[in-house]
Amino acid sequence: MLAVLRLGHRVERDKRLTSHVALVARAFGADKMYYTGDKDQNVELTVMKVCKRWGGSFETEYIGSWRKLLEAWKGSVVHLTMYGLPLKSVIYEIRRVHAENKKLLVVVGGEKVEPEVYHLADYNVSVTNQPHSEAAALAVFLDWLFQGAELERTFPDAEIHIVPSAKGKIVQRRSRLIQT
Amino acid sequence: MLAVLRLGHRVERDKRLTSHVALVARAFGADKMYYTGDKDQNVELTVMKVCKRWGGSFETEYIGSWRKLLEAWKGSVVHLTMYGLPLKSVIYEIRRVHAENKKLLVVVGGEKVEPEVYHLADYNVSVTNQPHSEAAALAVFLDWLFQGAELERTFPDAEIHIVPSAKGKIVQRRSRLIQT
Repeated sequence: MLAVLRLGHRVERDKRLTSHVALVARAFGADKMYYTGDKDQNVELTVMKVCKRWGGSFETEYIGSWRKLLEAWKGSVVHLTMYGLPLKSVIYEIRRVHAENKKLLVVVGGEKVEPEVYHLADYNVSVTNQPHSEAAALAVFLDWLFQGAELERTFPDAEIHIVPSAKGKIVQRRSRLIQT
Repeated sequence: MLAVLRLGHRVERDKRLTSHVALVARAFGADKMYYTGDKDQNVELTVMKVCKRWGGSFETEYIGSWRKLLEAWKGSVVHLTMYGLPLKSVIYEIRRVHAENKKLLVVVGGEKVEPEVYHLADYNVSVTNQPHSEAAALAVFLDWLFQGAELERTFPDAEIHIVPSAKGKIVQRRSRLIQT
């Protein structure tokens, strides 16, 4: 079980960013995204539609309190923050811990992250110490965690899948092949 | 010279996403981001402010025609698209080409990418064949290209930099250390 917790979603400002975080979580091997802040039907619908079309059983769940989730979590908590320890210096330990105890929660901000999150996390990890994007940080972290294996992941029950192509688009829909 | 081209920016819809693409480009080792679509002072200002504060000489430039840039580009063009060839199957060749001819342009969409882009690109590369995020795809691509070396990059003339920390935030401002 690998879950992502996205902190402090705001409907107007973060609409597409939070959807991107969820889609990255799904594409790079997480099972679920929890989020706090504003509850947002649109984000949940977007992700649900992607799952229906592209397969898999990824879930999104709004929760009222990150504190409760972090305190109750029976597993490791990794908080991605540009203030944290460099990815390379901790990833070997996190891989080991994840192999032993399969439950891992990866936390991403939010505009303003409460100091308590830094203390409740087992690891505060930086994917560069520069400001950039929570979706990017999550993708790079999961890619290092799974050592690239997640890039070949397939999703069961997809209505549609892509046949990789050097030029153009080849899409396979359940029974027929569409080339454009 | 490594540049990113972001296609089809729309002021309202993509404001923060395009800033994230630019910040990822900067943090992961690109020198510049070109963009097409709507010219957007806010994106340019956001990136300029980050550069002033966090150092380096990353630039953003609006261009009217992606076609002209692609046709005139003296170097390789990589287009990141979920329809492309798997990252792992082409990254060795792209690294080699990049080592020989230092000029590389990495193109990211845009809602709707013209078929011509697929044909003008030397490589159409997929970072998973699933829908997720252009910022994430760019980060993972650059991380593979530079084999993690970009994670240790430093930026000259920064007003501020982070001292990595296991808990909390430590920020160094030119001459003094601030710990919270």
